[in-house]
Amino acid sequence: MVPHLTTSLTGPLKDLERLILDRRPDIEHWFRNEFLEHEAPFYSSVDLRNGGFKLAPVDLNLFPGGFNNLNPDFMALCVHAAMSAVQKICPDTRRFMLVPENHTRNLNYLQNVAVLKRILEGAGMAVRIGSLIPDLAGPTEFETAAGEKLLMEPIQRKGNRAVLEGFDPCAVLLNNDLSAGVPPILAGIEQPILPPLIAGWTTRRKSHHFHCYDRVAEDFGKLLGVDPWFVNPAFSQCGKVNFAEKEGEDCLAANVEFVLNEVKEKYAQYGITEPPFAIVKADAGTYGMGIMTVKSVDDVRNLNRKTRNKMSVIKEGQPVHEVIIQEGVYTFESIEGGVAEPVIYMIDQFVVGGFYRVHTSRGIDENLNSPGASYKPLAFETDCQSPDCFGAPGTPPNRFYTYGVVARLAMLAAALEVEELAGRASALEVKAANA
Amino acid sequence: MVPHLTTSLTGPLKDLERLILDRRPDIEHWFRNEFLEHEAPFYSSVDLRNGGFKLAPVDLNLFPGGFNNLNPDFMALCVHAAMSAVQKICPDTRRFMLVPENHTRNLNYLQNVAVLKRILEGAGMAVRIGSLIPDLAGPTEFETAAGEKLLMEPIQRKGNRAVLEGFDPCAVLLNNDLSAGVPPILAGIEQPILPPLIAGWTTRRKSHHFHCYDRVAEDFGKLLGVDPWFVNPAFSQCGKVNFAEKEGEDCLAANVEFVLNEVKEKYAQYGITEPPFAIVKADAGTYGMGIMTVKSVDDVRNLNRKTRNKMSVIKEGQPVHEVIIQEGVYTFESIEGGVAEPVIYMIDQFVVGGFYRVHTSRGIDENLNSPGASYKPLAFETDCQSPDCFGAPGTPPNRFYTYGVVARLAMLAAALEVEELAGRASALEVKAANA
Repeated sequence: MVPHLTTSLTGPLKDLERLILDRRPDIEHWFRNEFLEHEAPFYSSVDLRNGGFKLAPVDLNLFPGGFNNLNPDFMALCVHAAMSAVQKICPDTRRFMLVPENHTRNLNYLQNVAVLKRILEGAGMAVRIGSLIPDLAGPTEFETAAGEKLLMEPIQRKGNRAVLEGFDPCAVLLNNDLSAGVPPILAGIEQPILPPLIAGWTTRRKSHHFHCYDRVAEDFGKLLGVDPWFVNPAFSQCGKVNFAEKEGEDCLAANVEFVLNEVKEKYAQYGITEPPFAIVKADAGTYGMGIMTVKSVDDVRNLNRKTRNKMSVIKEGQPVHEVIIQEGVYTFESIEGGVAEPVIYMIDQFVVGGFYRVHTSRGIDENLNSPGASYKPLAFETDCQSPDCFGAPGTPPNRFYTYGVVARLAMLAAALEVEELAGRASALEVKAANA
Repeated sequence: MVPHLTTSLTGPLKDLERLILDRRPDIEHWFRNEFLEHEAPFYSSVDLRNGGFKLAPVDLNLFPGGFNNLNPDFMALCVHAAMSAVQKICPDTRRFMLVPENHTRNLNYLQNVAVLKRILEGAGMAVRIGSLIPDLAGPTEFETAAGEKLLMEPIQRKGNRAVLEGFDPCAVLLNNDLSAGVPPILAGIEQPILPPLIAGWTTRRKSHHFHCYDRVAEDFGKLLGVDPWFVNPAFSQCGKVNFAEKEGEDCLAANVEFVLNEVKEKYAQYGITEPPFAIVKADAGTYGMGIMTVKSVDDVRNLNRKTRNKMSVIKEGQPVHEVIIQEGVYTFESIEGGVAEPVIYMIDQFVVGGFYRVHTSRGIDENLNSPGASYKPLAFETDCQSPDCFGAPGTPPNRFYTYGVVARLAMLAAALEVEELAGRASALEVKAANA
């Protein structure tokens, strides 16, 4: 089930894997306590980069697409995890409205919606799909990549409730990252929305996530007695950039230098000879738009028009004014000649699957979430019947456990992040009420 | 994955299945609320009988063996469910002592212990096996049916704690049904014991379980608007029987008549033409010992010596004085020419797997849990990608969902049962303290 992997793991990661396997009871105990205190997001996915000497999350998605890429054998895992999430967050819910993205031409995305619907139905929910497409005249059937029929219905507002014709949902599951802003039809409704609206890209920032992740990685490093850098990419941010107008270049250059210097120091400390690099990307947004690889300060000086155009707008035509500059983590994993990075999926606090994102025309220091990527499902340790299965680090089942641990660290950071966003939002409300 | 089934389902069960599938959101909502109020047992297994017109549990095991018979592909499901159980019941636990049965000559049972150990380890526990074998001199290695090595260590008592040499567990997981009584070395220890000692056969009674099940089936029948009899076998009990001494024959005969009459009425009501039968079995105990099929009162009058001997002693040489007389449910399922009954496994509130118990030399009205039985793993609905997968009742995935619902009804009854046993035990303690 595990795809054939060509990895070149040496040194520290093997040690880190060994340590994580040996300290499994302490790690799981620590996670249990953290998730008793902090509510895990309903679902999430994490992009990991496995650099051999380092294994780190580079992005966390709170509205994950791609459930269609998971191994269908593990549907039951998703269903159980969804049951657990519903029991914790909204036990009284019987009817869910699933709100997807608007891009109905992406048939693979539609297939993801079909799988999500099936997971919720498997968990015992009645599910209908509420669409935010502005010109959707009435209930409309779309066909997914696998040829399934999907009925999308226009969302209606009835007082403080978002409803569909003849269907009053108890809760809303967002699979739309709100890149285009908070839709007025969902604002202020009395039904619970999962994840909450404040977790959309209108209010969410990658840099905030990685600030939260710093704290999680720090605690995890203390627990294991290792440098948290092995699971944590250095980063910085710039708040006032305008690529189109060539504004904020100095801020960007200074922060690129800062991040590259941090990485240089760590590479020197651990005897890593690869050249450091950084990734500049929009601080809000997804879909691999507005991303560039830089290896020196010069790479962000005097950008040509093509790059400036590429960097200036992301999904839904949103302009980019804030960027995060993140330590680049090499991916030393490859599958069938393509560069690969693992993407791990979670529902509630459980790892429910994953896949490799594979790109044949990208380098080991480039973003792989871009056109032309293909997907290979990752499997669980189903074959692990031999007594030495917890033996050697680097074997696929153990690698997968390690991936699951690091992905859950990022997910825990997202839990803290959403808590803080909610805290901020209610503080603003109080302020507004007192004004 | 689903074994080839030969079933002859007609009439009411198809209707019941259809109803259960249609009312899935209400059923799952109801379970969610019940399990918020009542703590699901750490683990359990349920023997079901599928009579075509009726689907009912006939036994619930709170110390299930047989995890080795589950489909190994679903190990991850067991692991997640165990994580969920630990988080609810004893989140601070890092080290588990697993206490198995003493019969080390049953290599398949030992394989079950190995699988259970792996499930707990997968959930992030450090696990060692504490044995109750009286003459176990020191740590001893046993080999399982699959050739795995299993180290069993004598349990030691240190004050109020049960420990192993160099290992102080935070909790004890019993896989021993205490047929031989509560072991003094575990009595009154301060660590949590799962399931609690009072759930052992010293204090547990099948008739008590089915009294609790009556209430659950009643509520479920009301929820769906169906006669609860379709999921509930009629039963009665006799408290003073001595087969060896021919005592209690009148009580037994009267209760057999009572049960058979109940079944006759229901059969007449629903137009079922098969002859009713009942099963007489020990009210405490397992392993298919002390069980007989009766079709009329005459069957319990003037029992011959062989039958009286068979009925008078069960596991661990315990004499039988209390019996339950339970409506017999035909099994109309067969696999490869053998009569089959489904056994469903649960951890926490989740169905994690199951198998068919198949017997080639038993009839459709006999107990199958007896020497010569073989096992076929049951699968989850892994293949269910087609839009009409929730369509026809009677297809294997839907059948399995229905099995999972009825198994969880029995598990919910076990939750009520254990609550009552605990309540009784603490009432006795208060009484003793006041005496």
